[in-house]
Amino acid sequence: MSRLTPERTVELYRHVLRLLTDVGYDKLTMDAVAEQARSSKATLYRQWGSKERLVVEAIGALAPDPPTIPDTGSFRSDFIELQARTDDALESDDLALIPAVLHACRTNDSLAVSLHEHLVAGRVETLRELIDRAVARGEVAAGNPAIDFFAISLIGPAMLREVVEGVPSDPAYVLAFLDAVLIPALGITRPEN
Amino acid sequence: MSRLTPERTVELYRHVLRLLTDVGYDKLTMDAVAEQARSSKATLYRQWGSKERLVVEAIGALAPDPPTIPDTGSFRSDFIELQARTDDALESDDLALIPAVLHACRTNDSLAVSLHEHLVAGRVETLRELIDRAVARGEVAAGNPAIDFFAISLIGPAMLREVVEGVPSDPAYVLAFLDAVLIPALGITRPEN
Repeated sequence: MSRLTPERTVELYRHVLRLLTDVGYDKLTMDAVAEQARSSKATLYRQWGSKERLVVEAIGALAPDPPTIPDTGSFRSDFIELQARTDDALESDDLALIPAVLHACRTNDSLAVSLHEHLVAGRVETLRELIDRAVARGEVAAGNPAIDFFAISLIGPAMLREVVEGVPSDPAYVLAFLDAVLIPALGITRPEN
Repeated sequence: MSRLTPERTVELYRHVLRLLTDVGYDKLTMDAVAEQARSSKATLYRQWGSKERLVVEAIGALAPDPPTIPDTGSFRSDFIELQARTDDALESDDLALIPAVLHACRTNDSLAVSLHEHLVAGRVETLRELIDRAVARGEVAAGNPAIDFFAISLIGPAMLREVVEGVPSDPAYVLAFLDAVLIPALGITRPEN
């Protein structure tokens, strides 16, 4: 009974996430994964036990680690650096996964935990670190109430612009939102660059 | 060949939206709708032609009209009035529909148009009216760049708090976000109430 090699496992996870983005969690079948990955359903069930486990493992294995952002001297330029270090294609594939599994998360706790842990928590933590630095620099007052809403208020502009405005989001749009809403709310004086 | 009466049609639409919220668009079947509504699949296909048409019509028929908000004298109290006039249960059922159809919208234009027209556009318009009033009152400067981001930045806190923080959103949370982020960004001086 051979198990898949690590290389083939990563390749198979890529097929899982691509299928997930295309058809959504509910319509994803082990048959389709087996076919795309040129494996067999028996192998998939032997190694992962269930579709849920396979999807949770695939998200966990392929979700990018949060990037490390060097201190660039200001909150705004740190944020621009964050955008630059987040591979565009990966980022948008990644965000496309959220709608694909969002509804299924309502009734599937493992999936919800995996989504949060691998696609949400790391991002929130990185953003929090950028804010902590801004507080340490004196750009933002430690008790500013906007701090706690920073990560959640980026979701609409980053993920759901298409639903609201019919146009996909992009880094320039998210930066315009930062400048128009979050920087003023945080009380940051816009640097001259 | 009898058609459903208007009353039975509304009742059937309610079953469609409840099923949609529970199982999502992909897993919704005409069989399940027929069973819940005590109708037959033949009747459903005769009257609506397809699952897509049935869902689009159900969303269109049952989505609430945007409430009319009296001018209460300030932007913040207008917003509180908007929250009070948006039936809580309806609002949250309504917002639960968005994740249920979001992924299907990627490949289904009629569904995307219906979602936007019935669940998004009316809300955006009402919020825009509240902002226009605030501009007319002199609370907000006409060219404030936060105006264009107002509606989209409410989505994260209102719809996706559960994914980010593991706690469902509620009107108090959205109001706290308004106070911490949007009111400062709009340059509104908080009234004394």
